[in-house]
Parts: sequence; structure tokens; C-alpha cells
Amino acid sequence: MSQGLFYDYWRSSAGWRVRIGLALKGFPGAGGFAGPEGFSRIAVNLAPAISEQSGEAWRAINPQGRVPALVLAQDPPVLLTQSLAILEWLDEIRPRPAFLPADPTGRAAARAFALSIACDIHPLNNVSVLSFLRRQFMADDAAISAWCQEWLRIGLGPLEENLRRRGYQSGFIFGEAPGFAEICLIPQLYNARRFQLDLAPFPLLGEVEAACLSLPAFADTAPERQPDAPPAQ
Amino acid sequence: MSQGLFYDYWRSSAGWRVRIGLALKGFPGAGGFAGPEGFSRIAVNLAPAISEQSGEAWRAINPQGRVPALVLAQDPPVLLTQSLAILEWLDEIRPRPAFLPADPTGRAAARAFALSIACDIHPLNNVSVLSFLRRQFMADDAAISAWCQEWLRIGLGPLEENLRRRGYQSGFIFGEAPGFAEICLIPQLYNARRFQLDLAPFPLLGEVEAACLSLPAFADTAPERQPDAPPAQ
Repeated sequence: MSQGLFYDYWRSSAGWRVRIGLALKGFPGAGGFAGPEGFSRIAVNLAPAISEQSGEAWRAINPQGRVPALVLAQDPPVLLTQSLAILEWLDEIRPRPAFLPADPTGRAAARAFALSIACDIHPLNNVSVLSFLRRQFMADDAAISAWCQEWLRIGLGPLEENLRRRGYQSGFIFGEAPGFAEICLIPQLYNARRFQLDLAPFPLLGEVEAACLSLPAFADTAPERQPDAPPAQ
Repeated sequence: MSQGLFYDYWRSSAGWRVRIGLALKGFPGAGGFAGPEGFSRIAVNLAPAISEQSGEAWRAINPQGRVPALVLAQDPPVLLTQSLAILEWLDEIRPRPAFLPADPTGRAAARAFALSIACDIHPLNNVSVLSFLRRQFMADDAAISAWCQEWLRIGLGPLEENLRRRGYQSGFIFGEAPGFAEICLIPQLYNARRFQLDLAPFPLLGEVEAACLSLPAFADTAPERQPDAPPAQ
């Protein structure tokens, strides 16, 4: 029997955070995370046209209707939602490798880095927000792109400055291994490219990305590697 | 000498979260948080017309240019940003009263409740986002109100359902005392009223609010009680 179910969507960057977290903590089965010690991955399609139909069944399980979520195989089953809450949970039940530094101010800095992405960038580029902009404000593709780029620029600039101030040169940000900061950053940089943001002004963030993508926990969990991703064209 | 500086703005609901957190953990001085064991509060005006000027000096300290932030009186001084990272830090340096349940799945549920507000509601009603909507999409007051109400409704509905499913009737959500969930919820309900949302569909959230506002840590830290709030009319 597996640990439970992992509800995910290939393109969800919050979903990718949890995929990285599960992989870093050694839950088996990249992509599927199945097997007796892993989670069985269930794809939930969040594309606007489809989510209208599949949404009902999914909301019966998770009232928010969002992914990612875990359903732990306990009696009764336990629903865990919100990617950062799931990552904190993973770090508590399986402390090694640690996702956060050991000292409280280091932990606060790493969490703040992650939250700057999770609270100040990602929610604004969410599919439901972009749909609302198209519907209510008649936003066309150019306006959507400008919107996304605005929040990416405003958000990534201070993170680049953060790395500069802490004398970052290469490798991971808060120690010898990737943690909360990298787990949130890499999917966000992927999204930035999707929205055609020029990443040249963020060379230090690019260094972090290169260090992370050399690891299977990041590379094998990428959106296009998921079984529900459309075939490459 | 105080613990350091607390940068805040009376109307910031993320700032209110930290005010509640400091008060619950017993840092002295409601409103000001000053005194030898407290933080000296510094008001940063985030109103759009003023932040252009004051923003420069503030960003030299905090590249994100946002509040709340703490600057710990250490050598060198340590900057802590992001309200939820600050609350986690407070809970680590001063564990009683606890902001989170003791068991990992309980902690995950409380964090998820808080993150549903901090990631899925609050960022969309942020002053910088509303300014962008006015500027780029010519949104008028009615459109801004519709935008804010949309994300409040979509966000608060599942939280009400969450309380219903866990059999909540009155008092605090995850135990005998308020924690992360309440600290995020109460400022968000205040904002909901500001955007004229009808709160009648959320009676259980209203029960939580009533329980919290009976405590000085919530009532004395309310926006209009801050020294930088404009005089009541």
C-alpha cells in the first residue's frame, strides 16, 4: 500500500514544488511517485475548458479545487493542501535532507525567499486570474503578457538583489543543498520563460537554476516530463 | 535597547498579522511595540501617491519595498521579511503560546488555512495590483470592487467549508488558542468589509472572528488603532 494519493497537474508550478520536495526527500518514482513507499500521482486537469467538468468531483475532495494536494492513506484519509504547507510537513516527517537552515534567522530568510515567490509572484500569474482578466477586462494576449511580466520583474528583481547582498556566487542559496528557496524559484523561472520574460537581468538566479537542474529531483520532475503533459511537438 | 525595528503600515493586512503575532507572543507595547523587550514600530506609508518618494529610502533597507519587516538589533542588523516567515520565526524563538498544533498533520492543516489566505486571496487585493488594474485596464471603482469580491468569495468559501467539515462550532480553529489560521483570517475579513463583501454566507468564519476580537492581541492591533492611521471622521 502506498503512502497515499498525490493530486497534481503537469503545468502547475505549485505542483512542481511538491514533486521536487517528494523527490528530494526520497519518495520513489519520479513522475509517478508510486510504489509501496511513494504516493500514487493523479493528474487533475486545470485547463479552463476542462476544469468546469472535472472540477466538481475534485472539489468534493478538496473544496479549494486546486492542486497540488496529498491524501494520506490513513483512516480516515487526511487531506493536505497548499504546496508550502505540504513542504513543511515533508520536512517535519522526514527531516533529512533539510529544506531549511538550522538557525531561526536563516530559516526565516529561506522562508521569506520562498514566500516572495509563492505570495507575491505566483498568485498573479495563476490561470484563474488570467481567465478573469480576459473575461472582465477584455485582456488580449499582449495585455496578459504585460501583466505577467510586470509581476515577474517586480518580484524577481529583489530576489536577485537579495542574492547579491548575501554575496552569492554559485551553487545553492542557503547551504549545501537545495531547500524551500530553490523549490519555489525553479518552477517560477520556468513560468517566466513561458511568459517570454527576458531573464538576462537575473544572472544570479540563473546560477541557482543551473545548480538545481543538474539534479534529478528538479530535472525529472519538470512539467514536460509528467505523464499528463501533451506530447512534445 | 529594544529587540529592533518593526516596519509597518496601519492599513497593511500583512502588517496586522505581525502585530497580532508580536502581541500574542507577549512583546510589549500594543501599537508601538516599543520598550526594552519590544520592537520600535516605524510606519512606512504605502499609499500610492506617497510611496513613490518614501519608497527609495525604504528599498535601500528592504529591496522588496514591502511591509511588514523586522530589523533585528544584531551586529550586523538582520532583516526579516514576509509576514508568514516572521510568524514562523516568532514561533521558533518563543514557542509559547504555540501558533501551530503539535502534530505534523495538524500543523499542515493550520498552515494550509493560513496560506489559502496569504497566497490565494491577499495578493490579488494588494494596493500595487489594484493600481495596475486602474492604470492598464482602466478599471473604475466598480470594476475594482468586483475584482476584489471575486477573489474574496472564491477564497473564503472553501475556508467556510473547511470549518464545516471539521465540525467547527465556536472558538478557535485548531485548539485552545489562536494561531496562524486566525492571524491571517481576521485581517482578511477586515479587508473583505472594506471591499463591501457580504459576509452572511460565512457564519463560521464570523464565529472565529468574534472569538479573536475579544482578545486584546487582535483588537488593540487593529488598523485604526495604529498611530499612523488617519484620525476617525
